[in-house]
Amino acid sequence: LVNGQPAATIDVADRGFQYGDGVFTTLPVRNGIPRLFRRHLDRIERDARRLAIPFPGLEMLSEDVRTLLDSTVEGVLKIMLTRGSGGRGYRPPEPVHPTRVVALHPAPDYPAELETEGVAVRVCRARLGLNPALAGMKHMNRLEQILARAEWTDGNVREGLMLDLDGWVVEGTMSNLFLVKDGRLATPRLDRCGVAGVTRALAMEAAAELALTVEEVRVDLADLAAADEAFLTNSVFGLWPIRRIEDQQVAVGDLTRRLAIRLNERVDRESNTWQGS
Amino acid sequence: LVNGQPAATIDVADRGFQYGDGVFTTLPVRNGIPRLFRRHLDRIERDARRLAIPFPGLEMLSEDVRTLLDSTVEGVLKIMLTRGSGGRGYRPPEPVHPTRVVALHPAPDYPAELETEGVAVRVCRARLGLNPALAGMKHMNRLEQILARAEWTDGNVREGLMLDLDGWVVEGTMSNLFLVKDGRLATPRLDRCGVAGVTRALAMEAAAELALTVEEVRVDLADLAAADEAFLTNSVFGLWPIRRIEDQQVAVGDLTRRLAIRLNERVDRESNTWQGS
Repeated sequence: LVNGQPAATIDVADRGFQYGDGVFTTLPVRNGIPRLFRRHLDRIERDARRLAIPFPGLEMLSEDVRTLLDSTVEGVLKIMLTRGSGGRGYRPPEPVHPTRVVALHPAPDYPAELETEGVAVRVCRARLGLNPALAGMKHMNRLEQILARAEWTDGNVREGLMLDLDGWVVEGTMSNLFLVKDGRLATPRLDRCGVAGVTRALAMEAAAELALTVEEVRVDLADLAAADEAFLTNSVFGLWPIRRIEDQQVAVGDLTRRLAIRLNERVDRESNTWQGS
Repeated sequence: LVNGQPAATIDVADRGFQYGDGVFTTLPVRNGIPRLFRRHLDRIERDARRLAIPFPGLEMLSEDVRTLLDSTVEGVLKIMLTRGSGGRGYRPPEPVHPTRVVALHPAPDYPAELETEGVAVRVCRARLGLNPALAGMKHMNRLEQILARAEWTDGNVREGLMLDLDGWVVEGTMSNLFLVKDGRLATPRLDRCGVAGVTRALAMEAAAELALTVEEVRVDLADLAAADEAFLTNSVFGLWPIRRIEDQQVAVGDLTRRLAIRLNERVDRESNTWQGS
């Protein structure tokens, strides 16, 4: 749906196409329920505010999603919000008439055992640039992730970790990273680059329920190599333990397993608030 | 034209829309001649190669432009090349079927005296992030320029200068910057961010014809304040002297004027190679 109407195309003048001038979020739908819908809408509203793109409101986007879910009950929802058409060059139009795109795609066919057995990951050569003004946001300027994801084709490698320009480990191309060391949890700080995922925030809350705090820190390759356990979070796959980083084996440990269970419980609980059609 | 066919819309799945996964160039058309067409095509080919987007070839893009110029002889051409649709998430499709968009817009109504009297510019708060892998390229991830251009509405301020994250002055939101000091020319290095404009390269060649070399250097705000002369280059307006930076007056000097004349001569000369219909 483009602005609530069935459409397969977008205005070529849309600033989302011209400049990547927009934000988005991606979430799974299971049994007709968009998982953590409210959190994803809050995220898109927060990111849009940082770019001064007017948020069309929870109700209008909920209506779009209800329309799509009339015919399909499983898949992955992508919700995009752009600054619409107009303006002169980079200068934003006044007023802004944002474009909203809500699309439902088939869910990726991730084997279920990845959640328990863990995944192999690589360390990408492509770096994340530094820009605090855009850090944390899920915006539509994603060339860095594309350069990184183009580095490998081996289907057994499920994710690539990205370092920033200064060599700090920040995240995966499509996921956030957590490390366990001596029973403590840490995740990279996202103040200079990176995407602050909805499931990252939820994982931190799930950790708090287990009386574990998560420190947001700078992580280097030595920290990564020294971790007792490591895992990735993402709204579509939830939590994947990491079992291998390049050639190094990593234990899939007890703390990761406990947190995964608690995280899934929280997602189930919160997803029940969806007001379906 | 989208892939050679008249169209006002683009596939919503196009990676140019989804991720800003593409490159572009912008050039003026005067008396039916696209100015410096070959240089702009070379630029888009070079930038596309850096992103591994297949270049559709000079002849195909020339044909698109000839088609558009059948009906209009003045304006601004924008040529975009994206990675097309497909792929899984950030992962590029294999093979890539790129999308080319060629559009002709009305020329901006810049007063002619800006070329002689010069322009007022501001210094933007929004910073350019650092990423050598994307530096120099005219790609479709342009949120930084949008944030900068949204900072002012005063029509008398024609451009905003942008600093990088470390405080070095790099360029304007839509133009490159040159400084004159003690008879010598300098322009900011674009190895960590910025767009290496076609007219920037031409201005450096025009300077060489005048037996002036242009040093590519790091420029700070003190260098900017200490400049004897300063000017901006851009393919649409050519060369604008800077007559004011924030509250500081800048002389529109002799060296800038001589270079502007030489630059315009070069543009005229090279633009004659266009093979019109």
